[in-house]
Amino acid sequence: MELVTLGEAMVRLTPPGFARLEQARSLDVTVGGAELNVAVAAARLGVASSWISALPDNALGRMIAGRAREGGVDVSRVAWSPSDRAGLYFVERGAAPRGGSVLYDRASSAASRLAPKTIAWDAIFAGARWFHTSGITPALSDSAAATVVEALAAAKAAGLTVSYDLNFRGKLWSPEKARAVQEPLMRHVDVLIASAETARLVFGIGDAQQLQQTFGVAAVATTMRESSRAWQSTLSGMVAAGGAVHRAPTYDVEIVDEIGSGDAFVAGLIFGRLRHDSWETAVRYGAALAALKCTVPGDMSQATLADVDALLAQGKEGVAPMRVSR
Amino acid sequence: MELVTLGEAMVRLTPPGFARLEQARSLDVTVGGAELNVAVAAARLGVASSWISALPDNALGRMIAGRAREGGVDVSRVAWSPSDRAGLYFVERGAAPRGGSVLYDRASSAASRLAPKTIAWDAIFAGARWFHTSGITPALSDSAAATVVEALAAAKAAGLTVSYDLNFRGKLWSPEKARAVQEPLMRHVDVLIASAETARLVFGIGDAQQLQQTFGVAAVATTMRESSRAWQSTLSGMVAAGGAVHRAPTYDVEIVDEIGSGDAFVAGLIFGRLRHDSWETAVRYGAALAALKCTVPGDMSQATLADVDALLAQGKEGVAPMRVSR
Amino acid sequence: MELVTLGEAMVRLTPPGFARLEQARSLDVTVGGAELNVAVAAARLGVASSWISALPDNALGRMIAGRAREGGVDVSRVAWSPSDRAGLYFVERGAAPRGGSVLYDRASSAASRLAPKTIAWDAIFAGARWFHTSGITPALSDSAAATVVEALAAAKAAGLTVSYDLNFRGKLWSPEKARAVQEPLMRHVDVLIASAETARLVFGIGDAQQLQQTFGVAAVATTMRESSRAWQSTLSGMVAAGGAVHRAPTYDVEIVDEIGSGDAFVAGLIFGRLRHDSWETAVRYGAALAALKCTVPGDMSQATLADVDALLAQGKEGVAPMRVSR
Amino acid sequence: MELVTLGEAMVRLTPPGFARLEQARSLDVTVGGAELNVAVAAARLGVASSWISALPDNALGRMIAGRAREGGVDVSRVAWSPSDRAGLYFVERGAAPRGGSVLYDRASSAASRLAPKTIAWDAIFAGARWFHTSGITPALSDSAAATVVEALAAAKAAGLTVSYDLNFRGKLWSPEKARAVQEPLMRHVDVLIASAETARLVFGIGDAQQLQQTFGVAAVATTMRESSRAWQSTLSGMVAAGGAVHRAPTYDVEIVDEIGSGDAFVAGLIFGRLRHDSWETAVRYGAALAALKCTVPGDMSQATLADVDALLAQGKEGVAPMRVSR
Amino acid sequence: MELVTLGEAMVRLTPPGFARLEQARSLDVTVGGAELNVAVAAARLGVASSWISALPDNALGRMIAGRAREGGVDVSRVAWSPSDRAGLYFVERGAAPRGGSVLYDRASSAASRLAPKTIAWDAIFAGARWFHTSGITPALSDSAAATVVEALAAAKAAGLTVSYDLNFRGKLWSPEKARAVQEPLMRHVDVLIASAETARLVFGIGDAQQLQQTFGVAAVATTMRESSRAWQSTLSGMVAAGGAVHRAPTYDVEIVDEIGSGDAFVAGLIFGRLRHDSWETAVRYGAALAALKCTVPGDMSQATLADVDALLAQGKEGVAPMRVSR
Amino acid sequence: MELVTLGEAMVRLTPPGFARLEQARSLDVTVGGAELNVAVAAARLGVASSWISALPDNALGRMIAGRAREGGVDVSRVAWSPSDRAGLYFVERGAAPRGGSVLYDRASSAASRLAPKTIAWDAIFAGARWFHTSGITPALSDSAAATVVEALAAAKAAGLTVSYDLNFRGKLWSPEKARAVQEPLMRHVDVLIASAETARLVFGIGDAQQLQQTFGVAAVATTMRESSRAWQSTLSGMVAAGGAVHRAPTYDVEIVDEIGSGDAFVAGLIFGRLRHDSWETAVRYGAALAALKCTVPGDMSQATLADVDALLAQGKEGVAPMRVSR
Repeated sequence: MELVTLGEAMVRLTPPGFARLEQARSLDVTVGGAELNVAVAAARLGVASSWISALPDNALGRMIAGRAREGGVDVSRVAWSPSDRAGLYFVERGAAPRGGSVLYDRASSAASRLAPKTIAWDAIFAGARWFHTSGITPALSDSAAATVVEALAAAKAAGLTVSYDLNFRGKLWSPEKARAVQEPLMRHVDVLIASAETARLVFGIGDAQQLQQTFGVAAVATTMRESSRAWQSTLSGMVAAGGAVHRAPTYDVEIVDEIGSGDAFVAGLIFGRLRHDSWETAVRYGAALAALKCTVPGDMSQATLADVDALLAQGKEGVAPMRVSR
Repeated sequence: MELVTLGEAMVRLTPPGFARLEQARSLDVTVGGAELNVAVAAARLGVASSWISALPDNALGRMIAGRAREGGVDVSRVAWSPSDRAGLYFVERGAAPRGGSVLYDRASSAASRLAPKTIAWDAIFAGARWFHTSGITPALSDSAAATVVEALAAAKAAGLTVSYDLNFRGKLWSPEKARAVQEPLMRHVDVLIASAETARLVFGIGDAQQLQQTFGVAAVATTMRESSRAWQSTLSGMVAAGGAVHRAPTYDVEIVDEIGSGDAFVAGLIFGRLRHDSWETAVRYGAALAALKCTVPGDMSQATLADVDALLAQGKEGVAPMRVSR
Repeated sequence: MELVTLGEAMVRLTPPGFARLEQARSLDVTVGGAELNVAVAAARLGVASSWISALPDNALGRMIAGRAREGGVDVSRVAWSPSDRAGLYFVERGAAPRGGSVLYDRASSAASRLAPKTIAWDAIFAGARWFHTSGITPALSDSAAATVVEALAAAKAAGLTVSYDLNFRGKLWSPEKARAVQEPLMRHVDVLIASAETARLVFGIGDAQQLQQTFGVAAVATTMRESSRAWQSTLSGMVAAGGAVHRAPTYDVEIVDEIGSGDAFVAGLIFGRLRHDSWETAVRYGAALAALKCTVPGDMSQATLADVDALLAQGKEGVAPMRVSR
Repeated sequence: MELVTLGEAMVRLTPPGFARLEQARSLDVTVGGAELNVAVAAARLGVASSWISALPDNALGRMIAGRAREGGVDVSRVAWSPSDRAGLYFVERGAAPRGGSVLYDRASSAASRLAPKTIAWDAIFAGARWFHTSGITPALSDSAAATVVEALAAAKAAGLTVSYDLNFRGKLWSPEKARAVQEPLMRHVDVLIASAETARLVFGIGDAQQLQQTFGVAAVATTMRESSRAWQSTLSGMVAAGGAVHRAPTYDVEIVDEIGSGDAFVAGLIFGRLRHDSWETAVRYGAALAALKCTVPGDMSQATLADVDALLAQGKEGVAPMRVSR
Repeated sequence: MELVTLGEAMVRLTPPGFARLEQARSLDVTVGGAELNVAVAAARLGVASSWISALPDNALGRMIAGRAREGGVDVSRVAWSPSDRAGLYFVERGAAPRGGSVLYDRASSAASRLAPKTIAWDAIFAGARWFHTSGITPALSDSAAATVVEALAAAKAAGLTVSYDLNFRGKLWSPEKARAVQEPLMRHVDVLIASAETARLVFGIGDAQQLQQTFGVAAVATTMRESSRAWQSTLSGMVAAGGAVHRAPTYDVEIVDEIGSGDAFVAGLIFGRLRHDSWETAVRYGAALAALKCTVPGDMSQATLADVDALLAQGKEGVAPMRVSR
Repeated sequence: MELVTLGEAMVRLTPPGFARLEQARSLDVTVGGAELNVAVAAARLGVASSWISALPDNALGRMIAGRAREGGVDVSRVAWSPSDRAGLYFVERGAAPRGGSVLYDRASSAASRLAPKTIAWDAIFAGARWFHTSGITPALSDSAAATVVEALAAAKAAGLTVSYDLNFRGKLWSPEKARAVQEPLMRHVDVLIASAETARLVFGIGDAQQLQQTFGVAAVATTMRESSRAWQSTLSGMVAAGGAVHRAPTYDVEIVDEIGSGDAFVAGLIFGRLRHDSWETAVRYGAALAALKCTVPGDMSQATLADVDALLAQGKEGVAPMRVSR
């Protein structure tokens, strides 16, 4: 595997169209989770990817694993729990002035029971090049947090590049606890993904270059969006690295489903670094993949490398023409 | 009950997406009717609401009553007809430059047989605070018009505040007949809801303050919308009362379904007056509820008081951020 | 209210057709729970019914309450929890030789937090005639069990008839604990609903008349089914009471969804006793309602009194002819 | 045109699966009507068919005409009404012991305004060979009944064979009126389609050969079904003609939708007579087409001539093997 | 027939909503093809239209013919092939910055076997006024190209007006071959429909008036669109004829499905010329019909003449108001 | 990998419910192909499985690969073609007396271009234990037949057990060609799966034990079904091996979708031999898996090992009781 990610994935239930959850008579079923989303988005670009997690040994756990495999991700290292439950979340699409909403139902999930000394990191990291996790994982439980500590240290020791998406979830912990747990983690991190708002909330530092210096990370990256609508926005990305700030083009995006867009950005960034080296190129892959993610339903990127390359070639000036193939 | 409304509700049949009715192979089934919509929207905000009407004693009648109950509205006073039919209407969503369309099939409905001296107004209004009906009800039939006369007089006599939505339906009667029937009703009305266009068409008066003076009503209110699109518009509301004109903020709205938006405005206005007194506050609840209604499918408001309060707190500057809950 | 029931209701998620849960891409959303099912089935026959429970104050809780109201049940006494979750269950329809399956995800639900001294039984039972709960409720948690003890005593003290469906759920507790908790409850019970198998498993007694004598209950009732298929079975019911055993006719049933069939039987039995007195008539309503429940999707009976009376009038000889109405 | 039929067609609304109408959130939309069903079923076998009726000039009327054309039927002679409505009917599929049900909402339809002296029968019948209508058409209204009288006389005068399906609809008229109106029509009829029950109810004669003699019709035909289930039955057909009674094989049928099965029988009978002469062959086409109709959703036969010939070739012994084509 | 068109129609498979094909679990089924689309759009305006093509004698071929008939088009001249396949195409709706896409699977279709000397042009053109085909048809195969040559010559000889949509398909042939085949065809053409880009690509001439002079065609017409989004654009049309250039108003369009919009333009143009003579009027019908087409799903125009006339009457200033009918 | 299979997989398009293809407005999309079905069914039981084939490098090819991965099958050895198409097939579910039907559209597929000397059999078979293909693969094309020859020889040489399902497809070749091509293959085969009818048609030998002797294969196996209905049948299986004939129990099956049932039988047989040695046990796994396959939609088995073991433990007497899990 080139890329290994660690985190929880859940069954996502979404009313069709713009119905509120309360009025729904059917729900669309997809699967998502920040680190699995990264692994799938990268796998679709050709990166050999593996996802580490725990799932319940029931139909919902098997559904999650099946969708991960469909997305091209190796799940052979997932731990199967005979007794825990699968995390769930319910999503409502928004329409201005009503924003979208997410209702989590993830307490006591199998992934929240992740525990140190149960995962064969040496075997997992043998031959791997990049490790990614996010701030959701340590927020799941104390044992999950300890697992993250163990994983980051092992990844670093094995010579992998480590990326970490700060991804603060206020329903899971307080900013204070998030800081206490995550500050010590930063010394293992090479690439920190964090918006200015989140970084300020958790670490009290909103500036990317200051974050870099404070924590000694090689790069700090984030997407940037502006919108007064639910159905369209602009989307771009930046990375501060090597003393410079690299910005991707800004896309006008018609939004079908923005969940997972940040994860697609991370995947594009990782792909770019694994294949093309320069941060300038990497952030362009990240932003393009993030923009394309917004145009499809579900958490997971559906973009092939050809899709991304076509968008990068076209530049940002609007929608691609109708593409015709045999 | 705090709020009592009187009017017809129908089964609404809507092609999925943007299909024309003629090409539809399935139809979504919801229930709507101006005065029931008001009752449901108010009930979801916590107002104890009752809806007075007549329904056929068949599966369609029971469907209408069930959806009203689901919306939190008391239907124990509905009259059940062994022989009449349920009104139906077919709705097509528009896309510029094609406007939406409504095909009514409501002739000979149970509600059109509403007749005076059959409804126990005294019992219904005991303890109630507000009565609402609209110009659709007297347009259904002469006996329905006589029922409205009776109801307005009884409500007034029982000390209720009376609101009346002018709601002109050109398929049901002419402006001339609408004026002849409705002018005498105005002396029972405290709050008249009417757009400038409708008021001018029916009464020859488009100005809210002039309407107030002419008919001696305490307040005249309306929503205001501007749009050259089917999928987005601005939406606001105003009320002329106590010598002043109070305007709500103007929302940018992405339109999922605008039917029932005016009814939600009325419900918000009633809620505001019942709970908060000032017209300034009441019209803000009205406009916010009307804007939120546009963002969900079906005639009926799905907004909770928490939803409306969140929108009012946020102001009008754009869509609310993704809301996350446990 | 004539009928009061106490118990949990959950959101039910069902793949369309015969898909396995693991392969589903959408799920139908309904609501069910043994005691709510009883209340709805009785309400559709005209019994004023109220359901006592606890729900989370979120979209799923509101959905459950809305569907209960749609079914004609009063939910004004439901407690709303700001922090707990809604119970969920996932159902797969079977096809021989594969049986159906149910995956529960109900731990930590709001209803499992039901606690004594929080419910105004005196007010709830004022004017009521019948109280019903089942063996699922005390199995939810110790505090729920204590609530059941309190409720049964209060119902008895208020002069209500009390029915109790043994409804053993092996995922919630052991037969031993079920016996220890429920044996003391039996002295409050007038009508025990229990299959021979369940009664033998929990109390070590499979014979209805012996159960009656042992616990001093006025009647013991149950449905009886025989089937080697998933899509059809026979269905009947019996009640042992007053020294006699009364049997309903045996229906040939084409099974659309058998969940809730036992609850419909209980509702028919209650309806029969409340309206018609004799056990012989009551068990016929029970079996007819149970058979009709099997023919519709979802947990909840959709049968009107006219539907049941028509079936009873026709006897058991096959399917009713196509019914035509205006 | 070889075949001309006269009658009403309606928009049919059917809940998916086995849902009751009251619980439906979407309805499947098809089109049906006895005489249109006959025309479509015959057209699919290659008979040039035309349908005479009246439709409202709105989306529902255009939908009905479009589906008739899709079924291969000429609708160029349909009258378009600027003001009347389209008839509707709502269908619930049954499951034993619950029978299916039909809720008609057809009063005041455009077809009920059919009137004599408005239809160019001479032009319509020029070159035609067969005319068909049913007892539903004269039951729609007095003017429709007068139209049927006019049509039958004109058809007879033009030398066409005339078939008439007794098709009694108790919601539209009484047996007494049905007899008074229809007895005089019989002198124009060559082929009467009537079950023993219906013929006995309307004419007081249940025996086919006695009917033949009494009314001097060349043939009396009917389908025969036996079933104690909603999902399966046996189906056969017979015709009494030329002093003999010819019976078709009896099919075991798995029922998807039995509406329109009798109309398919009529179409097969007409096809057989138009192409193959003998009543023995004709009734076999009728029964095979009727059986095949039961296996598809909607009122209209979907069977091609190849389908019917394959079934006739195979005999009645069970289901045809999986058919594979390029 | 007034209008005769020649070309291929295919079964179109479209994922619901904005799903990518790869993630689809169901596909919507419609039918489309440039020349059939023209015939349907014209037929809905009242033009008697016939479509000439070849279809496989299987369920897909019958589906295509049925949908054409539903659209009001005569298919009695279609040739039925016992062995070839139906062409298919898969369409993905776009969302900026992802453009829509079309995946064709049309090789070896029945229509690609169209061959000269097999079609009775004399009979087909008897009484007809207009013939239309497009550059897709000769690109299907050499025999199809020869059929087009034959058809154009026959149409011209029979005195019909001939229109030809250049419609270049790069998957079917090269610009060089397109030029070689089509240049000789131009001498039969009266009205050439071609965008500046396509005309430049194929003929090396982008200017409409220069095209007119070069090929001696009476008129050159095209739609014009501008958009940086997938969900909205402007749409207009122009025709160069009689020494002048006539432009239609520019519509703001909310795009539901833009496929077939150009064909609707052609149909409006033909309708206008057949009914109203002036190019100025004709191009207005074309652009209005093209704009309306964009607002409905599927290739085929759903607009009635009343719809188009209402839009033309209203002018271009935005979306039509909600239309209410009986 | 333990198991390697070789063959084509296609996109399968199925109308919902019992609609005929011609009347469908949407199609369910699944993926199937005999040898892929075997690989998926075995993988779900825990057998490490790999599928060898060729797919087009477009969305349909990626869909097929994604579904194979979701089913747990390794597709890393699939060849990707830049120019060929994906095979398709359309399936109609039957209802007595109408049988189901399959319309293939697979000519010129990528898999039909499979060619010898392009596949790294040595690497593929390294460490593998079992190879399976079927008579469909050599029927695709001459080059595919040559590939099968090559594969069988290589598998044998590498010491794998080889199974071969005769699976005659009359649309692809004649019985004569099937015999000429396949007789020479038999010397590589250890386990021949063939019904008596197919074996008689192709080889002129219907008896299993005679087939064994003639071709020197270790075992001959088949499923056996009896049914006069489309919705239910009996299903069993047998294997002739080691001088004995072993029969599995006979299941009563309610049929949701019987396609792929024979492939599941093969997978169960392989699983049984790989894990449990005796033919008696293996054929029981085969028949149980085949019966369970019939109860789910789509070609692919959804059964886990726990599902099969539960069915085997229960015996054949009817449907399993509702299974409840946490």
